[in-house]
Amino acid sequence: MKSEKENLDEFLLIKKYFQPLAGPGSFDLTDDVAHLLSPKLICSNDILVEGVHFFADDPAGLIAKKVLRTNISDIVAKGAVPEYYMLGVVFTQKTDELWIERFAKGLQEDQDLYGMRLLGGDTTRHQKPSPLVVSLTIFGRPLSDRSPVLRSGASTGDLVFLSGTIGDAGLGLMVRSGDLSLSAGANRFLKRRYLLPDPKIALAEKVSAYASAALDISDGLLADADHLCKASEVSMELSAEKLPISDAANSWLKQRKEHDPGLAALAAMGDDYEILCTVPADGAQLFQTEAAGAGVSVTAIGRCVAPEGYPKVTLLSKNGAIIVAPTHGFNHFSQN
Amino acid sequence: MKSEKENLDEFLLIKKYFQPLAGPGSFDLTDDVAHLLSPKLICSNDILVEGVHFFADDPAGLIAKKVLRTNISDIVAKGAVPEYYMLGVVFTQKTDELWIERFAKGLQEDQDLYGMRLLGGDTTRHQKPSPLVVSLTIFGRPLSDRSPVLRSGASTGDLVFLSGTIGDAGLGLMVRSGDLSLSAGANRFLKRRYLLPDPKIALAEKVSAYASAALDISDGLLADADHLCKASEVSMELSAEKLPISDAANSWLKQRKEHDPGLAALAAMGDDYEILCTVPADGAQLFQTEAAGAGVSVTAIGRCVAPEGYPKVTLLSKNGAIIVAPTHGFNHFSQN
Repeated sequence: MKSEKENLDEFLLIKKYFQPLAGPGSFDLTDDVAHLLSPKLICSNDILVEGVHFFADDPAGLIAKKVLRTNISDIVAKGAVPEYYMLGVVFTQKTDELWIERFAKGLQEDQDLYGMRLLGGDTTRHQKPSPLVVSLTIFGRPLSDRSPVLRSGASTGDLVFLSGTIGDAGLGLMVRSGDLSLSAGANRFLKRRYLLPDPKIALAEKVSAYASAALDISDGLLADADHLCKASEVSMELSAEKLPISDAANSWLKQRKEHDPGLAALAAMGDDYEILCTVPADGAQLFQTEAAGAGVSVTAIGRCVAPEGYPKVTLLSKNGAIIVAPTHGFNHFSQN
Repeated sequence: MKSEKENLDEFLLIKKYFQPLAGPGSFDLTDDVAHLLSPKLICSNDILVEGVHFFADDPAGLIAKKVLRTNISDIVAKGAVPEYYMLGVVFTQKTDELWIERFAKGLQEDQDLYGMRLLGGDTTRHQKPSPLVVSLTIFGRPLSDRSPVLRSGASTGDLVFLSGTIGDAGLGLMVRSGDLSLSAGANRFLKRRYLLPDPKIALAEKVSAYASAALDISDGLLADADHLCKASEVSMELSAEKLPISDAANSWLKQRKEHDPGLAALAAMGDDYEILCTVPADGAQLFQTEAAGAGVSVTAIGRCVAPEGYPKVTLLSKNGAIIVAPTHGFNHFSQN
């Protein structure tokens, strides 16, 4: 692992705070490279920016965990488990040792929780007042020869499953930004869902065993379902009434006069980090049972159908009417 | 590869400009993960920031090449060849399609030159005026079981070799910043050396075959020699007269009244991206001959000696006097 440049201060900071996080193949962060000792790894990269993906005053430990977990989410959705990560950080001019200590503590807690280790990385520092940037490359071990489960494997007739509940993180961002207030308990729950994703690592094995296609939801259920449909060249019919909604999100829904557009809005919110996957009909019952056995609730929310014209996602109301979905995902040129 | 968020614009930009760069295991950048198909890879990460590692108005293609080459440099210094890379970019608010097109063209030219392919990555965009950030994780294939050649393998008696010439990039930065002007030709040469590192990929095989320890010089010869000494627990005696100096750097040296402090200054400048390695005496002749045969000039600049007290690097003048070295590397809290 390299500090930029390797002056005494940052060299000692890496030794003090990051070396304890290092695992096999990392050479204890004393060299320029790391050795990937496991064969057939998969990898993914997420780059998170202050002011875009987190707030400047979010706790350092939570920022660390959010960066790790958004990456872990990518890996487990593919039927693999996280093993290692490379970390690149651009500190701000104000980043002090206490911040780095808390950031490293957040990494330590989560890498212990998810069974992974630091391999190496690079640190540098802005020369002007500029936002903190964290880039993480994660490596995962596929749990079977069927993994990585891609976006492109879904077929007509497959059932569509979703883990957990949707829309909470999007509402949590509104609470965090002061644009929404519900009960104290609901506010706390929703903010937590925004600040700290909960990647469903226990589901990785079941995805690897049963899913024909899968991805994690970061851009919103409808947008990511759309990505899966395009890659698989199928369409999806999703039932709004079946969407798994938390009590807190339900209390928000009840405040709105129109129920269906509210559900569609939840299905368009981002940052859920739940798993969306398709499962052939003959494995659906076992998938759901085994997922429950692994402690993860999954809900069948629809099915894949033949694309008419082009692959698309349709959200249907209880009576079968098409609910017009709002913007799929968000466009950061205008909205983010 | 993921755009953040996957709105139409950036999705299409990735498809148009980055998909042509993708290689085996990348799933054509259509999924969230990539598959590392080669066993026993090594990897490294560098994160480069506008205003720290490059100028805002440097050509996009040159920024792309600098990011790739600083990472390639890490890999070849370990006796390995580059194979794949993951790319994370935080665009500025002003980054337009033309900039991205030129950036991708720079990547294309260099990945063809060095025989490597894009695996995946992530793009996002600043919400406020903020510097461009590029994070690159590179994967390399070790050329023998002796690779990766670490910093820690040097022994007393080993000879110290350096590829190419040193100090050019540091002088080039001074020229680029308007703090130095030599002849037009020298200015051009030095600026080029700063803007476009020349990683010695043909030397990777020889390092893998002969070197006991190695690293690439990014913080300056003296600073990186110091890193190697600390990791190997040896000291080094380097001969100032033997340091390989380009004609352009020599013209700068001649302008100075004091020759030895000038040499020491060149040995402390950063961004050389040459290879520093140690070779046991019995392999030194073959290493030098084979390196020359591969088209890379290497110079024996000193030897490893037993550490007295603690590992350190001493730069000696022609008559054996100790030249006091200036700051080893630079400290970006005060200098960068």
